[in-house]
Parts: sequence; structure tokens; C-alpha cells
Amino acid sequence: MSNKSSPIGIFDSGLGGLTVFKAVRRLMPGEDIIYFGDTARVPYGTKSKEAVISFSKEIAEFLSARGVKLLVIACNTASSLALEEVRAITRVPVIGVIEPGARSALGATSNGRILVTGTTATVTSGAYRKVIKKLEPGAFVFEKACPLFVPLVEEGWCGKKVTKLVASEYLAPLRKRGFDTVILGCTHYPLIKKIIIKALGGRIKIVDSAQATALEVRADLGARDLLNPARRGRERYIASDAPDKFKALAFRLLSIKVKNVEVKRF
Amino acid sequence: MSNKSSPIGIFDSGLGGLTVFKAVRRLMPGEDIIYFGDTARVPYGTKSKEAVISFSKEIAEFLSARGVKLLVIACNTASSLALEEVRAITRVPVIGVIEPGARSALGATSNGRILVTGTTATVTSGAYRKVIKKLEPGAFVFEKACPLFVPLVEEGWCGKKVTKLVASEYLAPLRKRGFDTVILGCTHYPLIKKIIIKALGGRIKIVDSAQATALEVRADLGARDLLNPARRGRERYIASDAPDKFKALAFRLLSIKVKNVEVKRF
Repeated sequence: MSNKSSPIGIFDSGLGGLTVFKAVRRLMPGEDIIYFGDTARVPYGTKSKEAVISFSKEIAEFLSARGVKLLVIACNTASSLALEEVRAITRVPVIGVIEPGARSALGATSNGRILVTGTTATVTSGAYRKVIKKLEPGAFVFEKACPLFVPLVEEGWCGKKVTKLVASEYLAPLRKRGFDTVILGCTHYPLIKKIIIKALGGRIKIVDSAQATALEVRADLGARDLLNPARRGRERYIASDAPDKFKALAFRLLSIKVKNVEVKRF
Repeated sequence: MSNKSSPIGIFDSGLGGLTVFKAVRRLMPGEDIIYFGDTARVPYGTKSKEAVISFSKEIAEFLSARGVKLLVIACNTASSLALEEVRAITRVPVIGVIEPGARSALGATSNGRILVTGTTATVTSGAYRKVIKKLEPGAFVFEKACPLFVPLVEEGWCGKKVTKLVASEYLAPLRKRGFDTVILGCTHYPLIKKIIIKALGGRIKIVDSAQATALEVRADLGARDLLNPARRGRERYIASDAPDKFKALAFRLLSIKVKNVEVKRF
């Protein structure tokens, strides 16, 4: 049985989900958090639905066995393709990043025209479009895959001319389409937020799912009276490969100092 | 026991190894070939040595069980990190791409100054440098990781300005270092060969390992009297994920028409 001191489980294909981890930590400093990054099989965004479902279920089972009180899929691709499948095998609530992001975008838009950026798998799944249209059938949603953003961010080229050129290649043709809101539908994208805004012409509201997801986590735990009143929660990091690279990237990309990364191979 | 009609097994982390497949096919039209692409776990170039060894052994066992008479590791990263480990568990000869490429470079260079380009894992392993220095201790070898080349090629941006800019970012600072030969130490790189040459200033000999590896395959089979005299060999393609994407990319990148891709998940 879950109780207040049970940890929250968060997983992602790699490190990008640490943006969600950070938002959860900021909002709920007393919680224990287990973060799992599937660094042996990253990226998910170019893989098939079957593969992403199989990987996600494996990780959900692994984290469930560690007694989490809530599971967060902090990966847009896995949330798009595997949310229902993970829910079906998990006893605790499972929160993905798509619905919180979609709601956030609907709150932000004035003209109902929303652009979604993400990996090929997320965009192909149409997950954001489906959720937005269910909540607001009148909204106009356009989805654009930007597969080079993740490798560019992981190369640390967040401010380089090359990255601006890639963003412009993907997004400049969409400038005249009247979008007033863009969803950063991949956890790496907030790291090149300014470049994305500029490529889109400058005047556009940005929605990233991390903050919205953290709010949903707090609401769920509050409703179940499972918020941990401790002053300072603990963190545990687990990766399926390359713990040193995990540490280095966590610091370089997100200024998170990770002392220890356990390795769990599948 | 192997015989003339046994197939050749070729594997890669994904599709890049099809460049080796093509060279083998051209040189030995009568051979049956089984090609395995580990598309569920691609790329290898950013993963740890342990992970690459474990993946490679799994695939080698899978192909061995299919009675191959020779195994080709058509992936620079896996050849760099896992050749000995695969040899240790395989009864038939195993040929990687590093040694043929290194020999080819030593044949091509006039001044003994060789530049090696590749993935982060290949470059970090120092595999090319070690082999070259063993064969020719007086050679000067410099290795440069170019991790964005693979995603750029897979995006199909082989002629774009962005790709030129990335190549220039990686390679232009090396122009004045007097290299007369560059090894394309990743099976994707031949697809942007011209851009790489230009970024290096234009006057440099290019070595890709595919042709050299195919020659070594023929030499090995010839020496063991295992060359297949058939007129037209068969091909079998197996991938660990996303067979449709495999087909599409094989055609788009390498003009190979793949009719059927079997799926083997690990």
C-alpha cells in the first residue's frame, strides 16, 4: 500500500525527463523521487509504437516493484504511445505529459491555433491533437516533427548558429499560419526555447509540459492525502546505461548535481 | 559445419551497415546474406562499452544459430568496442570494419598523417589509432567525433546548408594540420562524403571501410574454400524494430529495394 513516505517514480527515455523531475522537486520539496532514464535504448522518438510500449512497461514494472505511490511518464513519446498500456499493468495512478501540456496550451491560446513540436514518434501518434480536440473541438492543431533538436541539445549546441538554422528550416515556413501558442512536445526543447520562439517569428506563447505535469502530480497526491510533509526529500537516479554520461549531461544541460547513478540493465 | 551455401551474416546498429552489405553483394553476387539491424537500440555511438558488447553478443549468437559461415560486424562502434568479445563466443571467423579501414588508410596516405572521423564511442575507444599505430608506428593519427552526422543523414539532409555548417564546425579547424587522408569511421558518413571533403579544404583522400571490408570477406572465404559459386545469392533482412522505417530508409539513403524485413525483438 502507498503511504505519504512512498516515493514518486519518474521515467524517461533518457535525461530530458529531468525537466519534469526539477518541476516536481520545486513544487514538492518533501517528496522522495526515483528517476529512471532508459539511456541504453534512448532515443524513443524514432522507434516503433510496439518497442516504446514494451520498453515503458518494463520500466513501469521495475518502478512499481520499488513501491512508488505515483508514476510519471516524463517522456512525450512514451506518454503518446504507451500511457494506456502502462496504466493497464500499474496499480498506482500514472500521469503522462500530454494531457497537462494540452490543457496548458488551451489555457494559453487566445485564437485557438496551436502548434505542436516534438519527435517523429510523438507527432506521428497525433497524441496532442487528439487530447486537445477532445477538450476543445474547435481548436486548430498542427503538429511538426523536429528530430534534430534532441541530438543538437545533447551535443551542447544550444546557442549555435547551426541550431538556429535547423530551427528555421523546420519552423520558419509555419510563421504565417497564425499560431499564437506552441507546445514544446519534447522534454529537451525547453533548452532551446529562445531559438524556437525566434524561428517562429518572435510573438508566440510557449507551453512546456513540465510545470503543468508537476501541478497535476501535486493535485493527485493531495486528493489521495499522500503528500509527504517532510522538509527535504531524497533523490535516487537509475539509468540503463552509461552512468557517467548521465551525470555529466544532467549537470551540463540542467545544472543538476547527481552524486550517484545506479545501473539497471534490461 | 559451414559450407559454400551457408550464408554470410552482417550486422549493424541500424541501417548504416548496408553500405558494407552493398560492397559485399557487389563483390560476391552468389552469396546468401543475412543482414541484421538493431533498430530498437540504435544508435550505438552514444552508448557505453558494456552496452555495445552486450548487444553485439546477443546479435552474434542469433546469427550464429542461423548457420552463418562468416560474421561481419558492419558497425564501426561495435567493431571498436566488441570485436574480441564477439570472437570469443563465435565459432566462425568474425571480421570488423576497423582493421580493413586502417590498412586502407595506410595504403592511401603519402605523408603518414591520418584523420579519423566517427561517433563518440568509436573515437573514445581509440580503436583506429591503436590498429594504425600497430601496423605503422610512425603514423600520426588524430581522431574527431562528429556525433551530429548520423542524425543529419537519417533526416535525409545530405545536401543541406545546415549539414555543411555542422561539418565545417567539426572539421574546418583541422584543415591546417596537414592530414592527407581521412577515414570515414562510421557507415553513415560516405553519404555526406563531398561535404566532409569540402569542410576539410578539398584536397584529401577519403577512405571508407565498406570496400576494404568486403575484400577481406572475399579473401577469408576464398582461403577456406567457402565462396559460393551460385549466380545470384539471396538476401534476408532482419531488424529489431520498425521494419517499415527500415525499408523506407534503405531505399532513401542507399537505393536498396527491400521487399521484406523480419522482426526479431530481444
